[in-house]
Amino acid sequence: MFYLIFSLQLSFLVIGLSALAPRICNGGASPYSYKTEYFKVPVDHFSFTNDDTFEMRYLINDSYWQPAKGAPIFFYTGNEGDIESFAANTGFMWEAAPEFNALIVFAEHRYYGKSLPYGNKSLSEPKYSGYLTAEQALADYVYLLTNLTAARDVRSEEVSVNGVNINRKLRGIPIIAFGGSYGGMLSAWFRMKYPGLVTGALASSAPIWQFPGLNDCHTFARIVTSAFEIEEKNCPHNVRKLWATIDELGNTKEGLEWISANWKLCGPLKNKTDVDSMKEWISSATINVAMVNYPYPANFLGNLPGHPVRAFCKNLDKVMEGKDLLTATFKGLNTWFNHTGSAKCFNLSSEFGTSDLGLDAWNYQSCTEMVMPICMDGKQDFFEPSPWNLGEYVNDCKKNLKMSTRPYMIAKLFGGKNLESVSNIIFSNGLLDPWAGGGVLKNVSKSTIAVLLPSAAHHLDLRATNDLDPPSVRMARQFYKKIFRKWISDFHQEK
Amino acid sequence: MFYLIFSLQLSFLVIGLSALAPRICNGGASPYSYKTEYFKVPVDHFSFTNDDTFEMRYLINDSYWQPAKGAPIFFYTGNEGDIESFAANTGFMWEAAPEFNALIVFAEHRYYGKSLPYGNKSLSEPKYSGYLTAEQALADYVYLLTNLTAARDVRSEEVSVNGVNINRKLRGIPIIAFGGSYGGMLSAWFRMKYPGLVTGALASSAPIWQFPGLNDCHTFARIVTSAFEIEEKNCPHNVRKLWATIDELGNTKEGLEWISANWKLCGPLKNKTDVDSMKEWISSATINVAMVNYPYPANFLGNLPGHPVRAFCKNLDKVMEGKDLLTATFKGLNTWFNHTGSAKCFNLSSEFGTSDLGLDAWNYQSCTEMVMPICMDGKQDFFEPSPWNLGEYVNDCKKNLKMSTRPYMIAKLFGGKNLESVSNIIFSNGLLDPWAGGGVLKNVSKSTIAVLLPSAAHHLDLRATNDLDPPSVRMARQFYKKIFRKWISDFHQEK
Repeated sequence: MFYLIFSLQLSFLVIGLSALAPRICNGGASPYSYKTEYFKVPVDHFSFTNDDTFEMRYLINDSYWQPAKGAPIFFYTGNEGDIESFAANTGFMWEAAPEFNALIVFAEHRYYGKSLPYGNKSLSEPKYSGYLTAEQALADYVYLLTNLTAARDVRSEEVSVNGVNINRKLRGIPIIAFGGSYGGMLSAWFRMKYPGLVTGALASSAPIWQFPGLNDCHTFARIVTSAFEIEEKNCPHNVRKLWATIDELGNTKEGLEWISANWKLCGPLKNKTDVDSMKEWISSATINVAMVNYPYPANFLGNLPGHPVRAFCKNLDKVMEGKDLLTATFKGLNTWFNHTGSAKCFNLSSEFGTSDLGLDAWNYQSCTEMVMPICMDGKQDFFEPSPWNLGEYVNDCKKNLKMSTRPYMIAKLFGGKNLESVSNIIFSNGLLDPWAGGGVLKNVSKSTIAVLLPSAAHHLDLRATNDLDPPSVRMARQFYKKIFRKWISDFHQEK
Repeated sequence: MFYLIFSLQLSFLVIGLSALAPRICNGGASPYSYKTEYFKVPVDHFSFTNDDTFEMRYLINDSYWQPAKGAPIFFYTGNEGDIESFAANTGFMWEAAPEFNALIVFAEHRYYGKSLPYGNKSLSEPKYSGYLTAEQALADYVYLLTNLTAARDVRSEEVSVNGVNINRKLRGIPIIAFGGSYGGMLSAWFRMKYPGLVTGALASSAPIWQFPGLNDCHTFARIVTSAFEIEEKNCPHNVRKLWATIDELGNTKEGLEWISANWKLCGPLKNKTDVDSMKEWISSATINVAMVNYPYPANFLGNLPGHPVRAFCKNLDKVMEGKDLLTATFKGLNTWFNHTGSAKCFNLSSEFGTSDLGLDAWNYQSCTEMVMPICMDGKQDFFEPSPWNLGEYVNDCKKNLKMSTRPYMIAKLFGGKNLESVSNIIFSNGLLDPWAGGGVLKNVSKSTIAVLLPSAAHHLDLRATNDLDPPSVRMARQFYKKIFRKWISDFHQEK
């Protein structure tokens, strides 16, 4: 079960990691310009046991903003990673801002990037780490926005008799929340919980129903498998056979040596534990390649070709077995992980096993409130069978992170499937995206609507325009802007 | 400023105290029958620094309930006091429940009554007291309702593949929140924050805008004054003259003795401090008599006649001065505090100075997030001038309770005046009620509506039917039930 918790939760994190990649690859260069600022917020918004504060980071660009025209704030609800990465990988916000005269703000999620409430100690023990929750992060965003709008509202509204009239100032400014993946969950929840502050939300690839009691744990793996099947019908069958094939070879010394040599592993396989690691590594790779299955080359996790699933499956196009199967799989993985051909050998532990804070913090969140059941049966999906067991999950969290799990907390606090009374949220999901199964795929109210993007992977629609974008994504972006205009116009009419 | 904070915040608490009174007077007898149950909830819902739990109390009556018919839960969001008192004084819920086949639940607010997270230590230091917030109390109610509905839903809905499908069970049961005063604020906020769980709310006399930046601090005192003026136009002028008259007499030994003897004080006035206490006591009395200015006798704060403001003003019906004024005022106070004639003397410190936990806990809440600015100018109101000064307020809280104040927290977390996106809330206010000035007095959206009750005091509409109820209150109760039916019908159509 350790595998399931940490590698699959890790695969959700890869969204953060992948978003991080461009910054890493480009040495910090971003295609967009902004100022980096910090804002002091309480560590604990919901009790009075702790008066500590910390400096949260946010990125801001006010070069387009015309508040006197009633222009909106485009507010990115930062998720599990460095906020600069999300700014670099959310091109849609930057492209749409000028035509809306919008203020652009990217807010960093507490415990990620440079927004560490207790510096290096932040994750060291519960008295420091315990404030890492979605609810607290959303309250940070409320404080930031309240302050920003009070400080930047240029209109001469009357100030109330007693002190600063924060709320009346806020009334003039529509705020649209944006987010992808966990950030999309946050943007949807932000609108749900603070409808007086947040005018509407674009929640892209936001699996708000990938939680216990709300979803079938099998969906995720089935979508991964079908994303491979779409590219090449023999590919999933071959992947499904991999596990036994690797086990068989891994049973003998000669087999271990053969794999180590032919797969150019940096460290040779020595025993069953190593073999299990290798299988885990391949599973994660298939999941990640499905998530970032974009139609154009992108420098995620190093350089990737366009349609990376296609590249992975290219050599698995007929029924294969034994060493042939392993050789073809290696070629697929090589195309993916070593697109530029610069890698000398494969390091099974480094590619998805880095222990940067982002990863630690997401593992922490997974064990406390972000419990997202995922399971495999090896029949309708191509993974080794791996049931979901909440009890084991909770025990593992207690054992490994010393944390208590509250598996139903998210459903309780954010309403679960009861969204009929919620308004002004767009839930978009790419149907190639494994997380789509946990997303909102049908309209739930007049203004809480679902957008399905047939040939899109994980939050493709939030990325910058590309000539290779599928028509569904191009059309969706136009549609989003139309909805934003309606939200803004309704907002000003209601005030 | 100490006076302002603690006596006026106390006056809000009197709602709790007054609600407590019947239990005290009747030795616990209630006109309604229920079972008393306890439910375990986390002490901290929003962080993982503390795994403690406590047993919250709730009262339940399922004798009318027919869940198979899609009948609702009537849920009282308990406020600052013992929950049994609210059950005894919210007759409207009991009267309406049978025709709705409703389940009746009264939930006790944490840190009040028997729902003490850390027993006697609960308010002793921030590590125990810090979890006394409205947000945490609402989360308690979410946990309780989620559990209740999961346990009591009799329909055979399919249970999901993984674990208990709490949310699907919840989908079948509409929940209507009820509350008066602070409890009304909670019921409104409950619907705002948990619209997936709470179908609608009746928030009676809920001053959700009596917070810094949202309201004019003078309103409260002006309404008190006008409630007296309605009964007798000379009365407010006389009250306004009281303070100087008392000061003048209090300046001499003879004057102090005269007051002590003629007002039958249990302990004689000795100095200026005692005189100030007496004025504070009278101020509080006028505020409280305005709040509970019901048209029929009620045993609040001991036995009260119907129209107690009228009784208070009866002897202040012409312009008076000096000892005549004091004698007439004493008669008014005597009518009020000593309606039965059983009191031998007046105890200035006991009537509003009890230090039961309810009071301490409300003082605590007033100093942390429940900051409700109230001020007097002595011109448009009949009190001694007393400006509102947030800085002093915060300092006093730090000095007296060692607590940090977050004056804008409520406005930030609950949306302040921006309620356009909120739905299914009835805000009712009696126009005789001093707290009405901080309430919602105009419709704010299609289904978030304001009901004004011209001749009603503090949450009269929630009380049991009485022959002396004004027509506005009778009509309002019929109207509420009509709205409830619509909410319930919409709920079942949407599901």
